[in-house]
Amino acid sequence: METFIQIIEFLGTFAAAISGVRLAAAKEFDWFGGYVVGLATAIGGGTLRDVMIDATPFWMTKSIYIICTGIALIVVLIFKKYLVRLNNTWFIFDTFGLAFFTVAGIQKSLMYGFPFWVAIIMGCITGAAGGIVRDVLINEIPLIFRKEIYALASIAGGLLFLLLSIVGVSDAICAIVCFLIVVLVRVLAVKYRISLPHLKAEDLER
Amino acid sequence: METFIQIIEFLGTFAAAISGVRLAAAKEFDWFGGYVVGLATAIGGGTLRDVMIDATPFWMTKSIYIICTGIALIVVLIFKKYLVRLNNTWFIFDTFGLAFFTVAGIQKSLMYGFPFWVAIIMGCITGAAGGIVRDVLINEIPLIFRKEIYALASIAGGLLFLLLSIVGVSDAICAIVCFLIVVLVRVLAVKYRISLPHLKAEDLER
Amino acid sequence: METFIQIIEFLGTFAAAISGVRLAAAKEFDWFGGYVVGLATAIGGGTLRDVMIDATPFWMTKSIYIICTGIALIVVLIFKKYLVRLNNTWFIFDTFGLAFFTVAGIQKSLMYGFPFWVAIIMGCITGAAGGIVRDVLINEIPLIFRKEIYALASIAGGLLFLLLSIVGVSDAICAIVCFLIVVLVRVLAVKYRISLPHLKAEDLER
Repeated sequence: METFIQIIEFLGTFAAAISGVRLAAAKEFDWFGGYVVGLATAIGGGTLRDVMIDATPFWMTKSIYIICTGIALIVVLIFKKYLVRLNNTWFIFDTFGLAFFTVAGIQKSLMYGFPFWVAIIMGCITGAAGGIVRDVLINEIPLIFRKEIYALASIAGGLLFLLLSIVGVSDAICAIVCFLIVVLVRVLAVKYRISLPHLKAEDLER
Repeated sequence: METFIQIIEFLGTFAAAISGVRLAAAKEFDWFGGYVVGLATAIGGGTLRDVMIDATPFWMTKSIYIICTGIALIVVLIFKKYLVRLNNTWFIFDTFGLAFFTVAGIQKSLMYGFPFWVAIIMGCITGAAGGIVRDVLINEIPLIFRKEIYALASIAGGLLFLLLSIVGVSDAICAIVCFLIVVLVRVLAVKYRISLPHLKAEDLER
Repeated sequence: METFIQIIEFLGTFAAAISGVRLAAAKEFDWFGGYVVGLATAIGGGTLRDVMIDATPFWMTKSIYIICTGIALIVVLIFKKYLVRLNNTWFIFDTFGLAFFTVAGIQKSLMYGFPFWVAIIMGCITGAAGGIVRDVLINEIPLIFRKEIYALASIAGGLLFLLLSIVGVSDAICAIVCFLIVVLVRVLAVKYRISLPHLKAEDLER
C-alpha cells in the first residue's frame, strides 16, 4: 500500500513537471527555464501550502521531486514527438496528481491543527496552485481560471472527506473516497465537457 | 466601536474582492477564476505580510473573508449592470480598505516585535499588495505602479503613525489619525488628479 | 575583510535594484512603481529563501536594502542618460551580486540545518529569483529562462562549494572559491556567448 501511494505521488508529480516543461518549450525557454517551470508546476502548490501552515516545504525533505523533474525534462527532450500521442496518459496521471495532492494537502493541514474548511482550501491549493505558478512564470493567464472543472473537483473531494469524517468514517477510507471522487469529477467533467459558466465583462468604458 | 471596526474591515475586504471579480470578468474568467482572483485581491497583501512576519495568515483563523468574497462574486453576477454606477461607492469602500489594512498591518507588525520602519512597509504591503497579486493573476501590469497615489497614501499614514507614536500619543489615537490621513491623501490625490511623475525609458537599443 | 564583504553585498544589491528600476522605466512606471520593482529585484530571492527556510526575511533586520534601493532610484532618475554607457559596470556588479548571494544563500541554509542539495538550490534562488520576481511584476517572460548562463553559474559554484566541503576545505575558502567560480562561469559564458540549448515547441495543434 505504501509503495502504491508513492507510485501515485510520483506519477502525479511527473505529470505536473511534464506539463510545465512542455509549456516552457512552447515559449522556447532554454533547458534551465524548462526545468524551473517544470519544478514550479510540480511543487508550487505544496510549497504555498507549507509556507502558509508554517511547515518546512515538503520538497526540501526528500530529493525525489528534484529528480522527478529532471527525468521529466529528459523525457520531453528525447520523446518530444511522441508526447502528444500520450495526451490521454498525461491527463490520467495529472488527474491522479490532483487527487493525490488534494488528499495530502487536507491531511497535512488537519495534522497541523487547522480547521476543516482551511484544510479543504489547502487541499485545493496543493492540487491546483502549481498550475497557476506555472502560468504566471510563462506569462499567460492561468488556464484553470478559464477552462474545465479542475480545482472544483478538488473542492468536491474535500467536502466529501469532511462529510465522511463527520459521520465517523475512518481517515483511510475518507482519503480513498476523496481521491476517487476527485478523479471521477474531473474525468466526467472532461468527458461530458461540463464547465463552469464564465463571467461576462461589464462595458467598463460606459 | 468594535462593531464599527468590523464593518470597516468588511467593507474594505468586500471592495477588494469586488475589484478582483470585476477585473476577472473583464478577462472572461469562469466563476471559480473570478472567486480566486477576488479572494487573492482581498487577502493577498495580508497573507504576504503574515508569511513574512511568521504569523498564521489572518484569513485562516476566521472564515469571514472566504464568505465575504463569495458574496462579492454573487453581487457581481447579479448586479453587474449597476456596478459601474456605483464606482464612487467602490472608491470609498476601497479607500477605507486601504486605510484599514494599513493600520492593521502596522499594528500587527509592531505586536510581533518588528521596528517601526518595517511596520510601515508591512502596512503598505497589507493595504496595497493584494492589488498587485490580482494584476499578476490576470496577467496585467500592476495598476498601482502606473496610476494615482495609492500605496503612498498608506506610507504617509504610516509615517504619521510613527510621528505621533514618538511624541507619546496613545495607540488608539495614532491608529485613527493614520486611518484618516490615508483616506484624506487618497481622496485628495484622486480629486485633484495628483500623481507621481513617471520614469522615462532610456533608449535601450542604443 | 568584513568591510570588503559588505561592499560586495552593497554593489550586488545596488546592481539588482538598478536593473529593476531601469526595466520599470522601460514600462513607464511611476517613481513608486520603479522603487518597488527595484526593491523586489534586490530582495526577492533572499526573501523567498528566508520564507522557505523559516527565517525572518533578511531585509527586515537591516534597513540598508531599503536605502540602497532608494539610491538606485535616484541614480536612475538623475543619470539616466549615462547608464547605458556603464552597462559593463552593471554587468560586473550584477555578477558580483549573483556570486555573493549564492554564497550567502548556501551558508544561511546550511546554518539552518538543511542538507547540501537544498543549500545549493537556495543559493541559486537567492541569487537568481529576484530577477524572476522583477519580470513577473513588469509582466514579461523571465529573462533568465531564455537568455545566457545565469542561474547555472550559481549552481556550478554551489557544486564546487559542496565538493570542497566534502574533501575538508575550510568554510571560508569554500565560500571564496564558490564566489570566484560563479563570477568566472558567468563572465566566460557571456564573453564566449555560451548559452544553454533551447527547448523546441511540439506542434501542439496536431
